[in-house]
Amino acid sequence: MRERVVVLTGGVGGAKLVLGLCHAVPAELVTAIVNTGDDFTHLGLSISPDIDTLLYTLSGRANTTLGWGREDESWSFMEALRSLGGEDWFLLGDRDLALHVLRTERLREGRRLSNVIADFAAAWGIGAAILPMSDDMVATQVETDEGLLEFQQYFVRRRCEPAVRAIRFEGVEAARPAPGTIAAISDPACRAILIAPSNPFLSVDPILAVPGIREALAAASAPVVAVSPIVGGTAVKGPTAKMMHELGLEIGAATIAAHYGGIIDAMLVDERDPPGDIGVASARSDTLMKTLDDRVRVASDALALADSLR
Amino acid sequence: MRERVVVLTGGVGGAKLVLGLCHAVPAELVTAIVNTGDDFTHLGLSISPDIDTLLYTLSGRANTTLGWGREDESWSFMEALRSLGGEDWFLLGDRDLALHVLRTERLREGRRLSNVIADFAAAWGIGAAILPMSDDMVATQVETDEGLLEFQQYFVRRRCEPAVRAIRFEGVEAARPAPGTIAAISDPACRAILIAPSNPFLSVDPILAVPGIREALAAASAPVVAVSPIVGGTAVKGPTAKMMHELGLEIGAATIAAHYGGIIDAMLVDERDPPGDIGVASARSDTLMKTLDDRVRVASDALALADSLR
Repeated sequence: MRERVVVLTGGVGGAKLVLGLCHAVPAELVTAIVNTGDDFTHLGLSISPDIDTLLYTLSGRANTTLGWGREDESWSFMEALRSLGGEDWFLLGDRDLALHVLRTERLREGRRLSNVIADFAAAWGIGAAILPMSDDMVATQVETDEGLLEFQQYFVRRRCEPAVRAIRFEGVEAARPAPGTIAAISDPACRAILIAPSNPFLSVDPILAVPGIREALAAASAPVVAVSPIVGGTAVKGPTAKMMHELGLEIGAATIAAHYGGIIDAMLVDERDPPGDIGVASARSDTLMKTLDDRVRVASDALALADSLR
Repeated sequence: MRERVVVLTGGVGGAKLVLGLCHAVPAELVTAIVNTGDDFTHLGLSISPDIDTLLYTLSGRANTTLGWGREDESWSFMEALRSLGGEDWFLLGDRDLALHVLRTERLREGRRLSNVIADFAAAWGIGAAILPMSDDMVATQVETDEGLLEFQQYFVRRRCEPAVRAIRFEGVEAARPAPGTIAAISDPACRAILIAPSNPFLSVDPILAVPGIREALAAASAPVVAVSPIVGGTAVKGPTAKMMHELGLEIGAATIAAHYGGIIDAMLVDERDPPGDIGVASARSDTLMKTLDDRVRVASDALALADSLR
């Protein structure tokens, strides 16, 4: 059964599922549609944090100790930058810089982000297709009790401390889905479409907000299965639970399932979660992804749930 | 006698004299007017090789082992760049990148090169004024037996191997001297104007070609003294002697003195050179600058020669 699997994903948490997926099925059959709402320009460089996390994770270059960035990183650039009085709130590793400098140059030459990323993935021997959600600029902005913050200002500089009131995706109305995204979702031979356990509001919603993607998902013949980001009543990592609280949402799989209402056919729920109806078909398993085996297991469980809906 | 000393200089060789000068007199009295004909854009980054050599040398950051670039350099960026298929013929160190990234960003914001460089020099506690010859883009191009080459293509990529037929400074007709350059040269309180033993054709000529600079030098009340780049009948380093040969010039101090005709009042000639009239006033000394003591000595000898002309 050599059929394509599509996965919608953000950065760190989602990349773990995508890596598991690339071991559960041949990597060449995996298409990841990646959030670019976190993308921003810093020191004149075009930075795509979630895309780069996928590139590092799928090529075996991810820094598993830090949990972000790449392995075997060095920080000479940052040290020199500081000595010159440059902005140092966003850390740029020496090796990481290569992606940013090359991407910036190639985008400035007029190339599309999706095309640039395909080249990077090919250079690093990545079998999966890594597609940005859009080649057009979309900027996630967070309305907080301290005012409107650009995503990286909220996420990195302010460490998600301000209370969130709403989230907007600047420019998304005019954004077109990147080449290949709609075709992958709509492919009649697609086996399953997964939504990774990334932050629904910050990482998945920007993808769903690109005109055409939500409609394609709703119309897809393939089953759409979300992996719940809630484990044992809270989020594994990042600000998901804190944000849900600030947005007045009950923290639980049912809330996430309702959030994805009209799109998903089923949800893979963590076995530690309290039992109960979540409003869509579901299966339960251990969704914590610490080891590669965990990641392959969660990917396989999500695929099995999708297959069961056929 | 607290009077200003001006020095026209290129990169590595000239920076040694400027460093010596900053020890021979208080650094705050030194104004270096630096060649920017070597400046170019690489991987989208604005690179100013001679300016940066001055910044590194005067702040004690120069790599004395390599003879170029900065000390304590690391190459993680280049390694990652190569793995992505990026151009790797021009080496960019991790720490060196900080200058290029910040300069590129600030120039793109609309700031002037001279202003950006003044900030860098201040951040690193450099007492001397480092002035680019111009804030406008001038590009040295080398006509060779292999065709017209951009300077870095000739110098770095082709290692000065093609035979030189002529040199041109693209854009120089429209270039204006950077703020402070003409004032420094024309300052009635200026003690001396030195021309460093940099390559006359590639490093000093671009400065002289900026409209207004040659005229200001010819009209300056301060004595103008060149330090000959010829030591013992050849050039210490770089392509000076090879180029003179290819240009059909006799390799010797007299040729250099004639080249600077109408500008210099005297030349400091290496004591190893054959004796003879070089057409201008001169003094002889050991001009080889291996140690800091050597550099201070050559700077002092050049100043003494200038003072003797008063």
